[in-house]
Amino acid sequence: VDELRLIEAIEGALRARDRRVLRWLGDDAAVVRARGVAVTSIDTVADGVHFELSTHSSADVGHKALAAALSDLAAMGAEPGQAYVSLALPGSLGAQEALELMEGMETLADRTGTTIAGGDVVRSAALVVSVAVNGWAEQEGELVYRDGARPGDLLGVTGELGGSGAGLLLLQGQEVELPEAARQRLLERHRRPLPRLEAGAALAAAGASAMIDVSDGVAADAAHLARSSGVSIEVRLADLPLADGVELVARAAEVDPAELAATSGDDFELLLTASPSSRGSVESAARSAGAPLSWLGEVAEGSGIGFVDARGRRPRLRGYEHL
Amino acid sequence: VDELRLIEAIEGALRARDRRVLRWLGDDAAVVRARGVAVTSIDTVADGVHFELSTHSSADVGHKALAAALSDLAAMGAEPGQAYVSLALPGSLGAQEALELMEGMETLADRTGTTIAGGDVVRSAALVVSVAVNGWAEQEGELVYRDGARPGDLLGVTGELGGSGAGLLLLQGQEVELPEAARQRLLERHRRPLPRLEAGAALAAAGASAMIDVSDGVAADAAHLARSSGVSIEVRLADLPLADGVELVARAAEVDPAELAATSGDDFELLLTASPSSRGSVESAARSAGAPLSWLGEVAEGSGIGFVDARGRRPRLRGYEHL
Repeated sequence: VDELRLIEAIEGALRARDRRVLRWLGDDAAVVRARGVAVTSIDTVADGVHFELSTHSSADVGHKALAAALSDLAAMGAEPGQAYVSLALPGSLGAQEALELMEGMETLADRTGTTIAGGDVVRSAALVVSVAVNGWAEQEGELVYRDGARPGDLLGVTGELGGSGAGLLLLQGQEVELPEAARQRLLERHRRPLPRLEAGAALAAAGASAMIDVSDGVAADAAHLARSSGVSIEVRLADLPLADGVELVARAAEVDPAELAATSGDDFELLLTASPSSRGSVESAARSAGAPLSWLGEVAEGSGIGFVDARGRRPRLRGYEHL
Repeated sequence: VDELRLIEAIEGALRARDRRVLRWLGDDAAVVRARGVAVTSIDTVADGVHFELSTHSSADVGHKALAAALSDLAAMGAEPGQAYVSLALPGSLGAQEALELMEGMETLADRTGTTIAGGDVVRSAALVVSVAVNGWAEQEGELVYRDGARPGDLLGVTGELGGSGAGLLLLQGQEVELPEAARQRLLERHRRPLPRLEAGAALAAAGASAMIDVSDGVAADAAHLARSSGVSIEVRLADLPLADGVELVARAAEVDPAELAATSGDDFELLLTASPSSRGSVESAARSAGAPLSWLGEVAEGSGIGFVDARGRRPRLRGYEHL
C-alpha cells in the first residue's frame, strides 16, 4: 500500500457537512467553531475481537467503528459533530479494502450529519480502527448522564434487543430454520447497527433521568447505571423487546431467549430511567424519534441489579450482581 | 488481564487538571466546557512500526503516543486540553505494563497541563495506541496553519534536529564512540520527545505565517508546507541545528549528518515561516519560550523544495521533490 496515495483516495471520498468546520483534513489538526460544551468519546474495534474479516466486509468494519462512537453521543443526548479516525492497517489488507472501510464509515457519517474531519493511517500487525467523536450541546443541562437514576424511576429501552447477538450466532454458524428476511435483518443488525442519535436527543429533552447505550448488553449496562447512580435496578425479563428471530436462534443455540437478549451486546439501543411523572413525555419523545419504547423494570434503593422472569422467579444470570 | 480491574487501576492513576472538564472517565463520554474553537488531532503508534517493545519501555510508548498528538496542537499554536486514549492490547502485554504505559502518558499529561479525560481498552493481536487530543483557542485568528507561507518569508526551526533519528540508530545497534551523556540524550530524544507547546503558542502570537511540527523530517515537512502554501522552499543544509552527537552517529552509520537530520522524523520541533518584518518578534518569542530558533531557508514563488549545501551545491535527497 502506498500510504500517501491511500490517504489521498480516502480524502477524496470524504465530505465536510458542517459549516462549523473551519479546517479539516490536510493540516496538523482540524479546527472547529465550538458550541457551549464538547462531548467526546473514543471507541476502538479490532479484528478477531469485535469483528472477523471473514464474516464482515471492510465497509461493515468502518460502519461499526463509527456507530459505536456515535452511540456514546446518543446516550448523552449530544448532537454529533466531527469524527477523527485512526486506521492501523496490516499488510494483508489492500488499499482498496482500506478505502472501502472508510467509504462504509462515510456513508454512516452522511446519514448522521457527522463530518470525518481528520485521521491517521499507520502500519500495524493487526487491523485496529479507533474513532474519536466530538459531539456538542449548547449547555450541560441538555445532556443526560449515567448517575441520575432515582428510586421510583422506571427503566426503559428503545427498539429491540438481542438482534446483534443472534446475528453473531448466525455468523458463527448456528443452524436454525428462519425466514430469510428475518435472517438478513439479524445479520444486518450485527454488522450495521445504527446509533440512536435522534432518540437520544429527544429522550434527554423529554426528561430521562439517566441514560446509557446498550453496548455490553442490558444486564451489564443496567448494572453500570445502578452503580453510577447508587441505586438498585430490577429488570423484568419477560418485558425485554426481542428482535424478530431472536427467540428461534436462541432456542436453536439452547440459550434462554431473554438471557441472550439481556447479555449480548452491540444492539446500540438506549437504556434509560425516567420518573413516573415524565413517563408520558418520554414515551412520546421516543415515538416521535421513531424509536419504540418498552418499560422493563424499576429503580429502587440499594445497589446491584436483579432479574424477574414471567413467573415471578428470580433467575441468576451468570456474571451479574444480584439484589 | 482482567479488563475491568485494569481500567480501574488506570482511572486511579489519572487526574483531572482542568476545571472545564465537567465529566470525564466513567460515563458514556466526557463533557468539557468549550472555548471559541476546538483544535483536534488523532495520532497512532503501533508496535514494530513506531516503537519496539524490545527497546522501549511501555511508559516510553505511552509518552510518545501523547507527545505525537500534542505536537500537532503545538504546530497550530493551540492550548492543550483533553486527551482520549485507545489501548489495543495483545495478550502478551501484562496488566502491569499496560498500567505503566498509561502512567508514562499521565506524566507527560501532567507536565503539559493536559487531562486524559476518556478512553477505550480492547483486546487485539498487536499493541496499538491511539490518542485523540482536543486543544482550544479563543478564536481562529490565534492559530497558524500550514498554508500561510509567502514568497520572501524566512524558514526557521526550533531546537535541534536529528536527535531522534540518531537515537533510533543507536537503538538499532549502531556502534559509535560517543560520550555517555550524549548517548543518553539521543536515546531520550527518541524515546521521550517533548512537544513544543509553549513555543508553538508564542510563535503563533508573534506572527509566524505558517507552521508544522517536524514529525516526518524537515525535508518532508518543508515539502508539506510548500505544497499547502503553493510556494517553493529552499533549505540550507549547513544551517540545520544538529543535536549533540548526531554528527558522530551519522558518520559511524555512513550517512551525511545533514541528510540524517533532514530526513529522520519524530524530533517534534516546529518548522515555521515568518516574514522578514516579524523576524525579531519571532526570535524573541522563541527565546522566551525556551526554544532556540535557527533560520535555515527561504520561501520563493514556485513549488517543491530544494536543498543547498555549505559549498553552494544542490544535493538531491532521495525521495524529495526538487526545485
